[in-house]
Amino acid sequence: MTPLSLSGVFAPVLTPMDEDLNIDLPLYIEFCNWLLDTGCHGLVLFGTNSEATSFSTAERMAALDAVIEAGIPAEKLVVGNGTAAITDGVDLARHALASGCHGVMTLPPFYYPKVSDEGLFRAFAYIADRVGDPALKMYFYHIPQISGIGLSADLLDRLASEYPGVAAGVKDSSGDPENLRRFHQVAAAHPGFSIFCGTESLLLANLRGGGAGCISGMANVIPDQIRDLYENWQAADADSAQAQLNWLRNAALGTGYNAIAVAKALTAARTGAAGWTRVRPPLVALTPAQQQMLHAAVAEAEPVLA
Amino acid sequence: MTPLSLSGVFAPVLTPMDEDLNIDLPLYIEFCNWLLDTGCHGLVLFGTNSEATSFSTAERMAALDAVIEAGIPAEKLVVGNGTAAITDGVDLARHALASGCHGVMTLPPFYYPKVSDEGLFRAFAYIADRVGDPALKMYFYHIPQISGIGLSADLLDRLASEYPGVAAGVKDSSGDPENLRRFHQVAAAHPGFSIFCGTESLLLANLRGGGAGCISGMANVIPDQIRDLYENWQAADADSAQAQLNWLRNAALGTGYNAIAVAKALTAARTGAAGWTRVRPPLVALTPAQQQMLHAAVAEAEPVLA
Repeated sequence: MTPLSLSGVFAPVLTPMDEDLNIDLPLYIEFCNWLLDTGCHGLVLFGTNSEATSFSTAERMAALDAVIEAGIPAEKLVVGNGTAAITDGVDLARHALASGCHGVMTLPPFYYPKVSDEGLFRAFAYIADRVGDPALKMYFYHIPQISGIGLSADLLDRLASEYPGVAAGVKDSSGDPENLRRFHQVAAAHPGFSIFCGTESLLLANLRGGGAGCISGMANVIPDQIRDLYENWQAADADSAQAQLNWLRNAALGTGYNAIAVAKALTAARTGAAGWTRVRPPLVALTPAQQQMLHAAVAEAEPVLA
Repeated sequence: MTPLSLSGVFAPVLTPMDEDLNIDLPLYIEFCNWLLDTGCHGLVLFGTNSEATSFSTAERMAALDAVIEAGIPAEKLVVGNGTAAITDGVDLARHALASGCHGVMTLPPFYYPKVSDEGLFRAFAYIADRVGDPALKMYFYHIPQISGIGLSADLLDRLASEYPGVAAGVKDSSGDPENLRRFHQVAAAHPGFSIFCGTESLLLANLRGGGAGCISGMANVIPDQIRDLYENWQAADADSAQAQLNWLRNAALGTGYNAIAVAKALTAARTGAAGWTRVRPPLVALTPAQQQMLHAAVAEAEPVLA
């Protein structure tokens, strides 16, 4: 049995690679265990920070299989099934469901830049209909600054109305507090529809607005601190805890470097494992000079890392 | 033996679908034959007009197999292997090569919006290196208004220098005559590097600049007329032939409807086959009212269709 709706702190798990840029499965499993041991309620395999779209469906399925075979509880896993082709989205969702995972996180098909809400509805409906299992839980993924495709509150409302239970929530990675508020209205109209923010800097705002938690790239780096805020969001000092949490994010991403390369470089520094020094093209890993700049920037944020 | 470089008029073949939105293979094969019989030198299976990215790699491979089994000459085929994941791009290229196709047309990985020329070079190089066969011919695909990722002349120059023969050309679908001229400079520096325009409205400009031909969505609709201009581009009346050719394009696309849905609607009207009335989400087919508007607009262009 999987819970009816999801809440908590989730990491969109970074994907380590060997020299051939294949997924380094032992390191991946070790990292998944570390994330769960260090504060994450669960994991999103193959979100944006995982470089999901840079891997084939076969690679994504094999990685999920390996993680489950290693004993990581499937019910703590949400699997990114975002692909340009809805048939791939169906295959990944079926595989996640058959593997016992909690649900899937679904990007809109992201090749065409100008698509209608009607077209997006049909794409998501195609996946829900073809999977055809009421146990499916879909978390829609709003990250317009990367995917080029935004999800409107109207679209989410329609999905929640026509696919109750299956349309289980949304991840808002826009970083826009106004948009998050619009999504809170959707959740208010559809109890059980979970709103996740995609940046831990909006965690407090999201929880105060009735949201369910966060799925944040920085949860790969400081899962414990994000979990602390999640647990203590009603404490008197929550605002200062949020501000302190933002410090590392602002320092790391203030460098202007690619956020995925940054999270991997910080993980490489923490673990010393070479598997974290690689990204798949078209991304490019940080140069040694950039790594130095990053570590200098982050050093100033050390109070948070204490 | 495949020719060293490609030239002529190519259709990025529209993909007909059955009621379940699977590829209607008999209609597809019939259409491929019609295109070759009616003016196309060759076909690009799975370009943008084919809704390439809306199909899984398995669906794309199965369609190619069916076309070749039906007796369509593999050497007249270029296969779009553009995918977000470079591993899929490798698999599609290997399959095309093993099938005897002339080459592949390769989109840049299109999920991330801001990627460097270095990252794009590594993505294309990954495919070329992993395929590892000097018989591979890659035509890079510049369609920034859709993919979100432009290919610079510098990048093409680097690819042509480091992968001579394998980096075989580019399709420029930007519709920008200035950009086309920059690509002509690349071809001038790398003899045999083929420049295709992605709109037949620049066919004359492309041929006059040393380009190789066009791969145009409208070649699905009026292959004969585009072929006529290609054959007679040095004739005295070539400019007026080009202007006449543009008439239908401007009428059809002047409606503002999605270009793929338009090309399919025109094909549906020509053939009466239901397989042309469908597109995969997130695209949406024209409504009956929109079809009526389209046919009214195109009727004014009838002199061209004579």
